[in-house]
Amino acid sequence: MGEGAKGGSIDERAAVALGAEIVSRCDQLAALTEEPGLLTRTYLTPMHKAVNARVAEWMGEAGLAARTDPLGNLVGRIEGTRAGARPVMIGSHLDTVRNAGRYDGIMGVIAGIAAVGELGRAGRRLPFPIEVVGFGDEEGVRFESALIGSRGMAGTLPDSMLATKDKQDITLARALTEFGLDPARIRAEARKQGDLRAYLEVHIEQGPVLERLGLPLGVVTAICGATRRRYHFAGEAGHAGTVPMAGRRDALGGAAEAVLAVEAVAREKGVVATVGQIAAEPGATNVIPGGASFTLDVRAERDVLRAEALAALDKRFAEIAKRRDLELTTQTFHDAPAAPCAPELQDLFARAIARVVGGEATRLPSGAGHDGMAMVAVAPIGMLFVRCRKGISHNPAEAVEARDVGLGALALIAALEDLAGRPDA
Amino acid sequence: MGEGAKGGSIDERAAVALGAEIVSRCDQLAALTEEPGLLTRTYLTPMHKAVNARVAEWMGEAGLAARTDPLGNLVGRIEGTRAGARPVMIGSHLDTVRNAGRYDGIMGVIAGIAAVGELGRAGRRLPFPIEVVGFGDEEGVRFESALIGSRGMAGTLPDSMLATKDKQDITLARALTEFGLDPARIRAEARKQGDLRAYLEVHIEQGPVLERLGLPLGVVTAICGATRRRYHFAGEAGHAGTVPMAGRRDALGGAAEAVLAVEAVAREKGVVATVGQIAAEPGATNVIPGGASFTLDVRAERDVLRAEALAALDKRFAEIAKRRDLELTTQTFHDAPAAPCAPELQDLFARAIARVVGGEATRLPSGAGHDGMAMVAVAPIGMLFVRCRKGISHNPAEAVEARDVGLGALALIAALEDLAGRPDA
Repeated sequence: MGEGAKGGSIDERAAVALGAEIVSRCDQLAALTEEPGLLTRTYLTPMHKAVNARVAEWMGEAGLAARTDPLGNLVGRIEGTRAGARPVMIGSHLDTVRNAGRYDGIMGVIAGIAAVGELGRAGRRLPFPIEVVGFGDEEGVRFESALIGSRGMAGTLPDSMLATKDKQDITLARALTEFGLDPARIRAEARKQGDLRAYLEVHIEQGPVLERLGLPLGVVTAICGATRRRYHFAGEAGHAGTVPMAGRRDALGGAAEAVLAVEAVAREKGVVATVGQIAAEPGATNVIPGGASFTLDVRAERDVLRAEALAALDKRFAEIAKRRDLELTTQTFHDAPAAPCAPELQDLFARAIARVVGGEATRLPSGAGHDGMAMVAVAPIGMLFVRCRKGISHNPAEAVEARDVGLGALALIAALEDLAGRPDA
Repeated sequence: MGEGAKGGSIDERAAVALGAEIVSRCDQLAALTEEPGLLTRTYLTPMHKAVNARVAEWMGEAGLAARTDPLGNLVGRIEGTRAGARPVMIGSHLDTVRNAGRYDGIMGVIAGIAAVGELGRAGRRLPFPIEVVGFGDEEGVRFESALIGSRGMAGTLPDSMLATKDKQDITLARALTEFGLDPARIRAEARKQGDLRAYLEVHIEQGPVLERLGLPLGVVTAICGATRRRYHFAGEAGHAGTVPMAGRRDALGGAAEAVLAVEAVAREKGVVATVGQIAAEPGATNVIPGGASFTLDVRAERDVLRAEALAALDKRFAEIAKRRDLELTTQTFHDAPAAPCAPELQDLFARAIARVVGGEATRLPSGAGHDGMAMVAVAPIGMLFVRCRKGISHNPAEAVEARDVGLGALALIAALEDLAGRPDA
């Protein structure tokens, strides 16, 4: 069913007004950039400090008491009415990739603040505390290791990470200290399993599914697990003119079959799989490739599907190598499990969408990574996706409709109200 | 049939001795290099002058009067016994690629000198003059345009080529002048159609066919025509995690199908075809390729086969582009017709092989280019291939057996004797 299927459930004016305010704030924050003309804001830089300061003001206006945690995450908190109630955390990130869009991460933080602000304006106090978090590092641009903010908060950041250096040879420990933080406090202030009632995140989809379905919002089922590999076929180079087709050991022929196998297996197994890089060696027009390398990126909402897809590809690639008399080598350089969204929080957001937009909420996996991947270590996570234009992200062309963003914030408010009416299990 | 099938026809001692002398001279010339430790000898350089001087000495010892033509080609001539008889030219090249092998081109020049020397030692004068030519440029390393020596001699080098510059901004005209040559004489001294009775060339195969067949020598049917193209598929880039498989416009998927179509069409049409370069754009592990480019190299001994293969590929690539919703662009950057070897010269070399080695001579096309491609403009051409190790060429690992080279020189002598017994048509 499409949006508004139940008729008249959308408060158009409220959605557009609230969304416009959120979008306007995201647009303002785009001025806080390290590279003039582009939006680039990386971890523990002066622009990180500037964005925290600006967002802290907005937190204050919404009734949230803001502080910076030992990772440089900005944490705003408003207390609840019931003593000892576990807080609900609403988070996303304030850092960006290089030459970024304006909404990836940032929109979710501002939407969280807006939700708290709206509740306050309506005079509504919830029984549980709400914490709105702007994580300092999700994208991993500066230290080439992502989710430093949320992993630090979840207590899963290895201590060895403090010695990691950026391109200027500055360690994470030194960067934290120079930012005015105390790395020794990271472990002490990390959240523990059970501390939070829920971790909720609103994020642009960064994909085309909601747009194709004509829907402003969707419920995330899981943040997909991902495996990244590099494969290499070795055959035999030769003169493109003098070596007959029969008996060639053309490594690129093997890689070409592998690329098509990746497409076929992805469709069979219901995962997404991509070959993003490919090269032939030595790479001359008139030389039969003696080697061919390519990358594989496989993602799935269920780890068993990803494992099945990889096993199927292993089998097919081995068959290709055998039939073509090539040698195959495989290197896995990234392997992360899926972070499933808690079924009760999926249902929570589905009810919120039904209330705000009408119709039955669509559920979809997140192929991109998010802070929830770290927070799932200490809390049940729930995610709400907001439609974005053409699925474009990590790009200045990233765009959202104010109405969709407003509906997202209204759905978040509805979800908080819903939680308030239910016992904390 | 294999070598020696008629039994006892090979004079092993003569072949090995003659071959060892030729190989030894090729090995000596490898010392004349611009890059110590590698063999690199390019056109109109001091090393070109040095190789001409050394080879001119050997020509003189064989009874050939040596001179340098206006292109820097070294031309040795011995007169015949019959007044006005048209000369038979035996040629190949003395320049090399960078980091070359020792036998590509050079072996054919030295074999020609050896053949004339052997005839002289035996007191045998042929009715026609013999010219042995060491072409100055076949590989095209210095001016990025190949066959300058033989095209100049055949009168097919465009005058505009004189303005072509090398990487040091030196024009071909200036390089010729500084070498002591007169570019104004190129046209005047060019050979005209009918001047030569035949152009004969002995060359290492640079491919694996003779080795696979267990044969030392083979008759070349044609120097293949070649087309080189660059193709580009344009699709739509996207996030490897967030864009579902359905509806992707992955340009690399199209390129992978195209690579396999190249293999299939080459086999169907009996041509050789190679994809030597490939790239995906933007070329990141986690981005669906929005573009993919690759090269094609197609060679065939008959131009009609090459045209049929290209037409079949055009059709398949268009079908791939349509089915996958990709845009295809094609750029042809090299297109050269085949140079067929004259049937009577193929038969001449076949008889010579039968006499020297025994058995029925194998005929095979040359996938690599040779000076005959230029000389075919003014003379019937005939080529004799000598087996080389594993088909390796343009590489220091290039290797030949002295016996095979000696058999090649003996077959060349046999061919010259055979020609001497036949009227010049």
